[in-house]
Amino acid sequence: MDAEIKVLPLLHMASGDMLSLQQYRLVGAHPGKVVYLQANLHGAEIAGNSVIHQLLTYFQKLDATALQGEIRLVPACNPIGVNTRAHNFASGRFNPYDGRDWNRIFWDWEQEHQGARTFAEQHLASDRATIQQAYREFIGQHFKAELATLDDPAGVPVHQRYRTRLQQQALAADLLIDLHSSSNQGLVYAYYFRDRTASIPYFDLDFAILLDQFDGNAFDEAFINPWLALEQAFAELGRSLRFDIEAWTLELGTGMKNDPQAIARGVNGILNYLRQQQVLQDGGGIVPRSVPLTRASQLKKYYATAGGFVQNRVALGTWVQSGDVLYELLCLNKTGQYPQVLTVQAQQSGLVYDLSTCEGVSEGEYVLAVMVPDA
Amino acid sequence: MDAEIKVLPLLHMASGDMLSLQQYRLVGAHPGKVVYLQANLHGAEIAGNSVIHQLLTYFQKLDATALQGEIRLVPACNPIGVNTRAHNFASGRFNPYDGRDWNRIFWDWEQEHQGARTFAEQHLASDRATIQQAYREFIGQHFKAELATLDDPAGVPVHQRYRTRLQQQALAADLLIDLHSSSNQGLVYAYYFRDRTASIPYFDLDFAILLDQFDGNAFDEAFINPWLALEQAFAELGRSLRFDIEAWTLELGTGMKNDPQAIARGVNGILNYLRQQQVLQDGGGIVPRSVPLTRASQLKKYYATAGGFVQNRVALGTWVQSGDVLYELLCLNKTGQYPQVLTVQAQQSGLVYDLSTCEGVSEGEYVLAVMVPDA
Amino acid sequence: MDAEIKVLPLLHMASGDMLSLQQYRLVGAHPGKVVYLQANLHGAEIAGNSVIHQLLTYFQKLDATALQGEIRLVPACNPIGVNTRAHNFASGRFNPYDGRDWNRIFWDWEQEHQGARTFAEQHLASDRATIQQAYREFIGQHFKAELATLDDPAGVPVHQRYRTRLQQQALAADLLIDLHSSSNQGLVYAYYFRDRTASIPYFDLDFAILLDQFDGNAFDEAFINPWLALEQAFAELGRSLRFDIEAWTLELGTGMKNDPQAIARGVNGILNYLRQQQVLQDGGGIVPRSVPLTRASQLKKYYATAGGFVQNRVALGTWVQSGDVLYELLCLNKTGQYPQVLTVQAQQSGLVYDLSTCEGVSEGEYVLAVMVPDA
Amino acid sequence: MDAEIKVLPLLHMASGDMLSLQQYRLVGAHPGKVVYLQANLHGAEIAGNSVIHQLLTYFQKLDATALQGEIRLVPACNPIGVNTRAHNFASGRFNPYDGRDWNRIFWDWEQEHQGARTFAEQHLASDRATIQQAYREFIGQHFKAELATLDDPAGVPVHQRYRTRLQQQALAADLLIDLHSSSNQGLVYAYYFRDRTASIPYFDLDFAILLDQFDGNAFDEAFINPWLALEQAFAELGRSLRFDIEAWTLELGTGMKNDPQAIARGVNGILNYLRQQQVLQDGGGIVPRSVPLTRASQLKKYYATAGGFVQNRVALGTWVQSGDVLYELLCLNKTGQYPQVLTVQAQQSGLVYDLSTCEGVSEGEYVLAVMVPDA
Repeated sequence: MDAEIKVLPLLHMASGDMLSLQQYRLVGAHPGKVVYLQANLHGAEIAGNSVIHQLLTYFQKLDATALQGEIRLVPACNPIGVNTRAHNFASGRFNPYDGRDWNRIFWDWEQEHQGARTFAEQHLASDRATIQQAYREFIGQHFKAELATLDDPAGVPVHQRYRTRLQQQALAADLLIDLHSSSNQGLVYAYYFRDRTASIPYFDLDFAILLDQFDGNAFDEAFINPWLALEQAFAELGRSLRFDIEAWTLELGTGMKNDPQAIARGVNGILNYLRQQQVLQDGGGIVPRSVPLTRASQLKKYYATAGGFVQNRVALGTWVQSGDVLYELLCLNKTGQYPQVLTVQAQQSGLVYDLSTCEGVSEGEYVLAVMVPDA
Repeated sequence: MDAEIKVLPLLHMASGDMLSLQQYRLVGAHPGKVVYLQANLHGAEIAGNSVIHQLLTYFQKLDATALQGEIRLVPACNPIGVNTRAHNFASGRFNPYDGRDWNRIFWDWEQEHQGARTFAEQHLASDRATIQQAYREFIGQHFKAELATLDDPAGVPVHQRYRTRLQQQALAADLLIDLHSSSNQGLVYAYYFRDRTASIPYFDLDFAILLDQFDGNAFDEAFINPWLALEQAFAELGRSLRFDIEAWTLELGTGMKNDPQAIARGVNGILNYLRQQQVLQDGGGIVPRSVPLTRASQLKKYYATAGGFVQNRVALGTWVQSGDVLYELLCLNKTGQYPQVLTVQAQQSGLVYDLSTCEGVSEGEYVLAVMVPDA
Repeated sequence: MDAEIKVLPLLHMASGDMLSLQQYRLVGAHPGKVVYLQANLHGAEIAGNSVIHQLLTYFQKLDATALQGEIRLVPACNPIGVNTRAHNFASGRFNPYDGRDWNRIFWDWEQEHQGARTFAEQHLASDRATIQQAYREFIGQHFKAELATLDDPAGVPVHQRYRTRLQQQALAADLLIDLHSSSNQGLVYAYYFRDRTASIPYFDLDFAILLDQFDGNAFDEAFINPWLALEQAFAELGRSLRFDIEAWTLELGTGMKNDPQAIARGVNGILNYLRQQQVLQDGGGIVPRSVPLTRASQLKKYYATAGGFVQNRVALGTWVQSGDVLYELLCLNKTGQYPQVLTVQAQQSGLVYDLSTCEGVSEGEYVLAVMVPDA
Repeated sequence: MDAEIKVLPLLHMASGDMLSLQQYRLVGAHPGKVVYLQANLHGAEIAGNSVIHQLLTYFQKLDATALQGEIRLVPACNPIGVNTRAHNFASGRFNPYDGRDWNRIFWDWEQEHQGARTFAEQHLASDRATIQQAYREFIGQHFKAELATLDDPAGVPVHQRYRTRLQQQALAADLLIDLHSSSNQGLVYAYYFRDRTASIPYFDLDFAILLDQFDGNAFDEAFINPWLALEQAFAELGRSLRFDIEAWTLELGTGMKNDPQAIARGVNGILNYLRQQQVLQDGGGIVPRSVPLTRASQLKKYYATAGGFVQNRVALGTWVQSGDVLYELLCLNKTGQYPQVLTVQAQQSGLVYDLSTCEGVSEGEYVLAVMVPDA
């Protein structure tokens, strides 16, 4: 099965060079769901590019009859972010021009529009497929206005231009997977959304985090919030409805790294998930594996309580008990005193799932994170 | 009148050096309002430091009887921001560590707490002074919890540590003036808040902007939002009440510059305002001067519609008509074509009040801003 | 006269995007000198792009018979540098990846090879044109080895790849003009080389600076050093010889700006110079204008003697006397003292030809520069 | 044994804060050599701070009689570099203000002065101790002039101010150890100087590199070049002489990391070396261990030959044969093609001693380094 390959102009630079997106599209022999994968939205989070490459290679060897629906793949989905460097490091988590986190800029249609309730009232009697179709068109009409702003003679800011051209790729997706990793050092896990728990075991994860609190527009790129809002609106009207729409942020290990194991787990998990979703029909077995669940509100980050140098930190993936030593901090001073060593203990029991790449920290800089699993 | 000078440790750096704030406090012979001025929250916006120095020099020559109340001055209120450099430029608008705009991090107590309505109901019958005192204590109790987080054994992120230590200086103020300038090239103007229009003419401004829309926590540092919310709550309960609390963001010209004229206008305007507020009783005359007003929602920013080089841009301070040429953009390409020159026209009539310092722009980068005055 | 337009792939980025150079080539009806102009090697120094555009527009209107030889134009000759941003500022003087100044990386063939003396001995009896031709071939053979390194299977560092691909454009030039400006705020002037004084008056300058001392490979991009070395070698062998090869760095005013006056002076000066060099035969008059000369060793830079804020600095273009006040520095402290104002005086008489864009300075940061003219 | 602790003001920042150095000085009961250690000259290279802390802790427990001579310790010897951040990464290899590598700025007295030959001629008949004493005074007189420039009313640039204040700490040292690590990921090794091979086995290294070629002032901070030049000058005059002066750059593993093993090897190696040098007389055994030697000219760095993502790279510390695969590069494009995977092979046999931290690379960015041992 060959991919259709589209080059999509993205941003025209001061130098006259054009940065572009490139989408690989695999169309199955049978109609079905639209799957959208992108990678490397944050500059350091490169592992997803290799995942996409391995998936693409795998799909190329398949016959189109093995695919029901279509799959769209966008590696390096943020060229500015991917190419940003500060010394040898990939510091492109935010735009050095405006400081905006590349994952906190997306079109928050749901919050802006707040039309789910009215829509639900108007479509209370329709069947799910009709509603899903109508809502998608409804969103699409609003998105047309977003697209139109790109032609505003006064221009639009770079984050808006970027997000619109990227979200244009994602909008039609039924299943959306945004491939991230830690910008620092992390395990393999996923962020998931309300009522999508059943699909978690098909990915190959260490654990999964429910987005249970608003996080500064962190997941608008996934475009699932409008659907959750509509489900909620129907629920309030007494109708239980779950659209066949899912969105995931897969976190594939450590930033600036292509860890072969994390990549393999990403690839295998996605293939497994696509089989379970009946998109991929390659005869492969479907293997569910249960993993610990947690919620965003149960993630605990530790920040340096003084400037210094982290020593003897617990290893990534350690389950700690409350009171266990997490790390020592060697603290210098310029007041004529000896250095001091502070000891920092776990405030709760849980899994150390992320570590700062840098062990030199000023007061308030990030050191590590612990997740507390659901009881 | 001598100033009390306090050194306030702020952030302990990885190197062992401590960054500090320094507050100059002038206490009048008579009790009265607490005035708080700070400068240089954004790294490029340095003019306020000279304003504070000139005010301090002026106050030193006065007798304490000329002052009713007290004045607290904090120049260079953001040492990391002030010292940040990228090549020769003061790029410290956001923290290079986390991309956070130094003016979008402050404690949004009002939005978090949302207790104004309940408080108003409980104090509906009290007199204004009593309410003001009680509300300040109420805020203060909540702020104690913010202060307590600084001792959290798990630490707090650098933006929270910074904001808490800075807001601690500002919390008691009746009159708060935050001295900014454009990070780019700008006129002399102020942002003001609802129902504080009457004081505008005492500053020496080109125009003033009402904050009429939420702007990503832009003005939480001023800590006036809780008071506005309380006034609103009383209004909804049928009681019209205006607290003697004001907050201003003075914008003093061009970034990275100490324009003597902008500084003089800042100093003279503030002295004039303090006389009008009866804080300063130095025998100086009080001269009001009416200026155009506008609202934040009537500011129109222009962004490059292609990458290129701005040419023949209108001068700062120009009143343009809709359709007037604002600038040309020389656009290069890497596709074998000749360069092109785009012409960008004003979409509305108004005053060109800000220009980008940099005339080389990638698509979506900022070029200039026009304000449309209130009819 | 139409330009031939060539797109030259330059650097393949991590994202898969390619940055390119684009050369505009105008070939005259008659053979003659090869003229090479490039612009924007340092990111902030954008004015040369407009100069090149205006020259290109002018040449397009000419008949090819008005041109003897050919002219090659490369605007935005450093795409990474041009597009680099730190906040709104064009900080691309050096590569954020390795800190290398984009103008201190060029192939220092002369210093590396040191073959001028031997070459001169071998060609002592030849005529100038023969020597010039042979030496160019000699350089070209060595450059082939530089080009070959680009295919080294171990790769070459980005600065080497960049410089080689750029110098490949410049190598054949008889007259080379590198269009710079101050990264800060500057006058209009030129750097020139030994024995090329006679051409200075044809540019439209405020003054000109002789490169009389080695400056960390500052001018290797101009590729004139090998020719100067050969002239010197012949001189030591008793033969006075001056090749018809010239190189210039034109400094066109202030960084991040397209000052129309600086651009006009750049354009007019270059046209005038090309007429005087008999490259351009458009019937235009040739107007020489004598300007003050100085040498690199007579440029005096002033750096902040403490951290602080520059106030009341002399204007750009001021002729100062020794002892004149150049600027004041408002110095804060965190030791409980009042701010202090330092006064900095001129150590020599001369012309203030450059000012720092930023007036907030830490100890040792650049404030201004004075040039002392030749007696 | 208590340390004398000195706070040394270093740089006064725009904000009014002062950055300082702090030196810990341990003076033995008996006179002897002066040992100087510093750490963290490059911002990411933090491991040496822990080494210094462990040494300091060890010395505190000793009686002064165990020390012959004195030891001076300066952790965090570059506060700007240590505190520099770009996103979460310690990008302080160069100053973001001017791009200067913090280890390429030091006073190159030997190259500047070139007085070794004359000095040797004047002292040809003196004994070694007399010469050593006289030469140190000679250097010291010149350094006084360097110190005096700090009072130049025109100021000196930040790199000069910094280097002078730092080198002032190091100038009297007989044994100087500069504690670095890779800014990326590296083994434990040392750079050494001509005729100091005999001491190498006392450190705990994987290998050692002779500085056999000039490297852009890389090691001027060590201040051994003047002594090597003098030894050379005496040799040319027929007298073989080796001063009891040594300088080392210890590379302790991976940047941004405090690897306990690298730190332990640093500490143990230094204690061992100080015993062998008879500075430390604590009864500890002296254990030499022979390691492979190489020369700077035999280090081979690999740079990306296209933009892309490094996959399946050899592990740090691997001995490779010529032709072995070092890494794959997954290369994307924006020209409508499938991604490509390039395979990069070792050009020589040797030890992979350093790997880039970032596996996302643009064309020309660094990937890994191999050292070829001396035959």
